[in-house]
Amino acid sequence: MHYSRLTQRIAGEGAAAWDIHYRALALQAEGEDVIILSVGDPDFATPTPIVDSAVDSLRAGATHYADVQGKARLRELIAHHHRQTGGAPATHADNVAVLAGAQCGLYAVAQCVLDPGDEVIVPEPMYVTYEAALQAAGATLVRVPLRSANAFQPDPADFAAAVTPRTRAMLLNSPHNPTGQVFTQSHWEALATLCREHDLWLLSDAVYAELIHDGEPFSPDSLPGMRERTVIVNSLSKSHAMTGWRLGWVIGPEPLIQHLTHLALCMLYGCPDFIQDAACEALANPPAALAEMRHAYRTRRDTVLEALADSPNVEALCPAAGMFMMIDIRRTGLSAQAFANRLLDEQGVSALAGDAFGPSAAGFVRLSLTVDTERLREACRRLARCADECRATVEA
Amino acid sequence: MHYSRLTQRIAGEGAAAWDIHYRALALQAEGEDVIILSVGDPDFATPTPIVDSAVDSLRAGATHYADVQGKARLRELIAHHHRQTGGAPATHADNVAVLAGAQCGLYAVAQCVLDPGDEVIVPEPMYVTYEAALQAAGATLVRVPLRSANAFQPDPADFAAAVTPRTRAMLLNSPHNPTGQVFTQSHWEALATLCREHDLWLLSDAVYAELIHDGEPFSPDSLPGMRERTVIVNSLSKSHAMTGWRLGWVIGPEPLIQHLTHLALCMLYGCPDFIQDAACEALANPPAALAEMRHAYRTRRDTVLEALADSPNVEALCPAAGMFMMIDIRRTGLSAQAFANRLLDEQGVSALAGDAFGPSAAGFVRLSLTVDTERLREACRRLARCADECRATVEA
Repeated sequence: MHYSRLTQRIAGEGAAAWDIHYRALALQAEGEDVIILSVGDPDFATPTPIVDSAVDSLRAGATHYADVQGKARLRELIAHHHRQTGGAPATHADNVAVLAGAQCGLYAVAQCVLDPGDEVIVPEPMYVTYEAALQAAGATLVRVPLRSANAFQPDPADFAAAVTPRTRAMLLNSPHNPTGQVFTQSHWEALATLCREHDLWLLSDAVYAELIHDGEPFSPDSLPGMRERTVIVNSLSKSHAMTGWRLGWVIGPEPLIQHLTHLALCMLYGCPDFIQDAACEALANPPAALAEMRHAYRTRRDTVLEALADSPNVEALCPAAGMFMMIDIRRTGLSAQAFANRLLDEQGVSALAGDAFGPSAAGFVRLSLTVDTERLREACRRLARCADECRATVEA
Repeated sequence: MHYSRLTQRIAGEGAAAWDIHYRALALQAEGEDVIILSVGDPDFATPTPIVDSAVDSLRAGATHYADVQGKARLRELIAHHHRQTGGAPATHADNVAVLAGAQCGLYAVAQCVLDPGDEVIVPEPMYVTYEAALQAAGATLVRVPLRSANAFQPDPADFAAAVTPRTRAMLLNSPHNPTGQVFTQSHWEALATLCREHDLWLLSDAVYAELIHDGEPFSPDSLPGMRERTVIVNSLSKSHAMTGWRLGWVIGPEPLIQHLTHLALCMLYGCPDFIQDAACEALANPPAALAEMRHAYRTRRDTVLEALADSPNVEALCPAAGMFMMIDIRRTGLSAQAFANRLLDEQGVSALAGDAFGPSAAGFVRLSLTVDTERLREACRRLARCADECRATVEA
């Protein structure tokens, strides 16, 4: 039977990046002592008041069709939250569409702003599903490097050099996955200027914005002349340990929100009312657990930094935000994938090869800070040992 | 700012069909005595054991990422259910992808099997969001009539005449919305033969298959040579009063399921685990409420047939399935939209104009059987009165 050309555009390498993760899960299921640091799923349960809200809503019969754009109260709370966290002060409920997660939000935005052949500038390393989400719309990714020599910070000159007459948008992600780095305001200003000069959309994936350890949140729609061309994709998945709820949103100009609502009508027909009620509770009454989780990620980061500080063969890059960190393993002489395989096979620790996120992260592995500090310390011991053994092999 | 060409393809008339429904909701909110028969949302709450299962799952911490294709147990239960209700006996879990509702399933299938310019034959009247879901993939709808003179049953000759070299698929819906009619097996066989002869996909929207009052369920993938080219889209929304849970599925050949899983990865990143657990409960232990709801729809149908039997100016078409019925109002001399407006304004009953679903349903209004029999009897009294007054005006 015939399949569409789209099926070729969405079957990229992205999925293969997770092979090591699934292998680690299988080993764990067999009873092996495996420390899994290969996925961005918080180890915390969703805070109880949020779960309670969903339960109350379910029990009260909120099991019918909901407003396709998202319920008004939730959109108001999202707009308020955005204004309070550095977003454009004029943001209101009509600038918000609720979708089935930030991934769904990005997919839907790509469908509504990109035509086949349009180019989107995306710094790499990048989150692995960006490629399929953009290519589903027929767009072409134009990658610009975030260089490890520059601590994975963007160089606006790279972006300027990548602009062509076909460029339609930039997709930026700060705080950044996989590196945990945060753009400075001057980076944002330089990239925003490029967007204005070349009439580009600025698509901002802000899902780690609530998990900043060093610095303040910043939203590019707050810059002059940027609100009309900025689209923010966000969710509660990471900050509120709600990955499995599949609830996210898009903030953008009203015409975009109307297009997204049309798309949501034929693609989703709305998000569950009881999940939207839980999201309302999460935003209206931020649970104490949020600060505790944020503090835990920071403590875990500091634990890894300390545990690897004296290792001669690996070097941890300090992330300013998020729940991931990058470990430079270039001194081992192995590729990141070979190192990751050996780390799992010989030491029982799963991490993702940086290359999976883009060539500029070659020589790094990404650790997820999703186990407690004691297990993290043990993972670091194993990682350093693995690096030492690799290095010894190389030198032998 | 620039928006994609897709935004023009998804902004069809479909949405306007619901205007009268939203107007009715607004009148009801103002305290008017309005009987709302304009939406396909069951008035029943989701059966308690299903809600309990979701609550238990939430409390047990099933709030993390789930398998993107759908959890194995749910896919096994769906395959089993399909085999038990007339589906191909070889159906197994690898033939199933779980998506965020049947609407999402249809959208995703269209993306994976249709290229821009492909034609899809769809009988009309048809469900209003088909147009946008197919056009989102760049496909062209080729409408064939279901004639009211033939009780909205398909004429295979119409379908044969509509096939061109660009035809890629047929989208069929039996039990049918809005008419409530059910294809006979000989209709299915004739249409399946056409699909085999012209190498077409047969896309089957089966969301009302559990609500058949007269006859047995039938699934076209059970016909010889059809399993490889049949795609079934289904959900628990209608049969289990779970419209708001946004959980549906696609059954089809394994390569299609793999493509759908790739698409789900970049579009949804899975469906909530606790919702999948609730769906498992619904399928593994069908609650007693299911038969009660089915019986209620049948009783309501019979109530309308009886209540309108002696009306000189309207005629109800008996549906063999589902939760809708079509009322022929042509003797009133008004268009269905004009009649629906007058019915709401003067009598406080909201129904959808048949034209909203396609020109072959002109002269009919669609009633949803989503209020109790007493309210339905009152709605029928008002509808008959409205028709009599329209007729009197015409004759005056």
